[in-house]
Amino acid sequence: MPKHKPLVSFSTDFGPGNRGHGVMKAVILERCPDAEVVELATNVEGFDLRDGAKNFEGLAWLPKGIHICVVDPGVGTQRRGLIIETGRGDYLVGPDNGVLLPAASFVGDVKRAWHITNQEYLRQPVSHVFHGRDVFASVAGHLAAGVKPQEIGVEVGAGSLAPAPYPEACAENGRISAEIIHVNAFGNVSFNIRNEALHQLVSLDDLITLTKGKQKIALPYKKTFGEVAAGTGLIFDGDFGRVEAALNQGSLAAKAGLKTADRVTLAKC
Amino acid sequence: MPKHKPLVSFSTDFGPGNRGHGVMKAVILERCPDAEVVELATNVEGFDLRDGAKNFEGLAWLPKGIHICVVDPGVGTQRRGLIIETGRGDYLVGPDNGVLLPAASFVGDVKRAWHITNQEYLRQPVSHVFHGRDVFASVAGHLAAGVKPQEIGVEVGAGSLAPAPYPEACAENGRISAEIIHVNAFGNVSFNIRNEALHQLVSLDDLITLTKGKQKIALPYKKTFGEVAAGTGLIFDGDFGRVEAALNQGSLAAKAGLKTADRVTLAKC
Amino acid sequence: MPKHKPLVSFSTDFGPGNRGHGVMKAVILERCPDAEVVELATNVEGFDLRDGAKNFEGLAWLPKGIHICVVDPGVGTQRRGLIIETGRGDYLVGPDNGVLLPAASFVGDVKRAWHITNQEYLRQPVSHVFHGRDVFASVAGHLAAGVKPQEIGVEVGAGSLAPAPYPEACAENGRISAEIIHVNAFGNVSFNIRNEALHQLVSLDDLITLTKGKQKIALPYKKTFGEVAAGTGLIFDGDFGRVEAALNQGSLAAKAGLKTADRVTLAKC
Repeated sequence: MPKHKPLVSFSTDFGPGNRGHGVMKAVILERCPDAEVVELATNVEGFDLRDGAKNFEGLAWLPKGIHICVVDPGVGTQRRGLIIETGRGDYLVGPDNGVLLPAASFVGDVKRAWHITNQEYLRQPVSHVFHGRDVFASVAGHLAAGVKPQEIGVEVGAGSLAPAPYPEACAENGRISAEIIHVNAFGNVSFNIRNEALHQLVSLDDLITLTKGKQKIALPYKKTFGEVAAGTGLIFDGDFGRVEAALNQGSLAAKAGLKTADRVTLAKC
Repeated sequence: MPKHKPLVSFSTDFGPGNRGHGVMKAVILERCPDAEVVELATNVEGFDLRDGAKNFEGLAWLPKGIHICVVDPGVGTQRRGLIIETGRGDYLVGPDNGVLLPAASFVGDVKRAWHITNQEYLRQPVSHVFHGRDVFASVAGHLAAGVKPQEIGVEVGAGSLAPAPYPEACAENGRISAEIIHVNAFGNVSFNIRNEALHQLVSLDDLITLTKGKQKIALPYKKTFGEVAAGTGLIFDGDFGRVEAALNQGSLAAKAGLKTADRVTLAKC
Repeated sequence: MPKHKPLVSFSTDFGPGNRGHGVMKAVILERCPDAEVVELATNVEGFDLRDGAKNFEGLAWLPKGIHICVVDPGVGTQRRGLIIETGRGDYLVGPDNGVLLPAASFVGDVKRAWHITNQEYLRQPVSHVFHGRDVFASVAGHLAAGVKPQEIGVEVGAGSLAPAPYPEACAENGRISAEIIHVNAFGNVSFNIRNEALHQLVSLDDLITLTKGKQKIALPYKKTFGEVAAGTGLIFDGDFGRVEAALNQGSLAAKAGLKTADRVTLAKC
């Protein structure tokens, strides 16, 4: 039976095909030649912490590993670089701007955290504008090769970390006040609502009212796209643990003018 | 001499950089740690079976392997999931909506086919909206690790499969009635015509009339772009076995208003 | 300690997610199963030698290896295919149109060069329109497997190579006449100016005038984005060795109407 290699993933807002990704992969492999490097999401909206955090949650569907997220508008400033150890045993590596936290909540929460301080484990010279390469990829490669986080940084309290870009929305008084945290390439819309939270409010085939300001859209709660006609809307349990709304073979975001950060309410009709 | 690893490719319409790809790669590697995972095409037009099938034909330029295609508007409905064994010895894995068939015709045709039924080889719980991860990547990983298709599914007749999204266009009465099956990032247009089929109609440097409705475009049949001036059109033997039309250093699709699914006729001027 | 595998990178203008990349990777691995294949940049502007050359410079941040660049408007014509050996010990593989040269200047310059002539090391039949697969990926795979360049081609003088798409801009009389060689996904603009060349002209926090025709923009020279307000411009040492101008969390290219190939002047205010 072949052995599993140490898995290192990265997610960024550089845009697909950007050379930053190839270089990060190479930096990881220089430090840990037998790492298995996986691009998780490289299509995060530029500088968008919500979209970055939502995409990074996808690591819960990867094996335990070392997972980098680079959505980093504060690069080169005093914002800290972090290593977070999760309850599942992952190391999450990235900036202290909240982008790592929603993903942590999917894999056993933050167990310990370290502020990256030891220059010895960074790629030198460290660019002021690309810590993804010189700090985070380098640190992740060393972690994959077996270096302990306490050699790389100084432990910090979980309470000291910058807050997550969105809270967990919960059912309350028959409705869920939520926000849009991601719009995918098809125009499907994701909310900061776990599938389980919606189950407390509705059952399959119920009709749900999605309200944004004065705009109201009625959408049936279905298992999958093909249960409604092409061009018709639905709400469903998203494939990455969060409730989604979409059109079957169309773009709900375009049709209804929905975008990341919009505040909405979901309630049973 | 290093050993060749089992090759698993995937093609999807998720859009480049989508986290679905990273997760599919990880699911494959969990089941077969020494697989070599190759992204074939991840820029297929959303829900477009023609474009998906055309891109998937590219596997004929990969070694024999296990090749997944996820263009799957019917995900979660009664449409079947398939494993197809080709004459060359590949396994093609994806939905039973015809998208796998044109590629099969490039590598020895469909030899046997199985309907994926054994839950034991799927990733649990199976999402109703992302069979690419929970069904197809999981099955492909198990096939790469040596599991036999008959353990994973129930054999079905080739005649029971949903039809291909386009037929093979052939020369008839001095013309070829064809359709556009793919437009690439440069605006080059591909037809459902094999290079060999065009050779029956024309010789190098002949002038070809491309007719779409009332629109007629005269294009020389050339070996390569640089044989015509920049901004000028040509028809040529495509690099993936199908006839293409293009502008040298420009977009024929944009200039002539051509798009996937357009019906056209090619004839010698 | 695990061994480093032979590294092969490729950069192209096919667009992210294009199947050409998957096929090139497979062709390399067929010839060298233990190669580590890295996509460097796959988002080069179509046919744009400046943008291709600038992206390809990123190989200086990869380990020594075999690096392919496919920006190749002359594919299939008489233009030569090249292997270039650099002072660092890399092999650069691609068309003789100048696109390989700026990268070479980052890793010890051109030491020797060969015109690819030996059909035995090409993938047969060689497509007239996709040398990336049939010539360059095939040759790179053989080089990774240990074949010597002199077995693959005929040595040619460095003086015979097509010139680079841009010169090195230098400070002269208190100004630098330069051109824009790359615009990234964020709208950041790169110049053909090495960071070190700018240091001869200005110091941190100096104000710089960027002149394009009659348009003048004053930008502070800073270490990083977060030192200026969101939406505000700056000039900084780029992460890949070249001076860049940008807006913090915005697109300078869009706001100021800047694009690749624009000629500009930089001077201290």
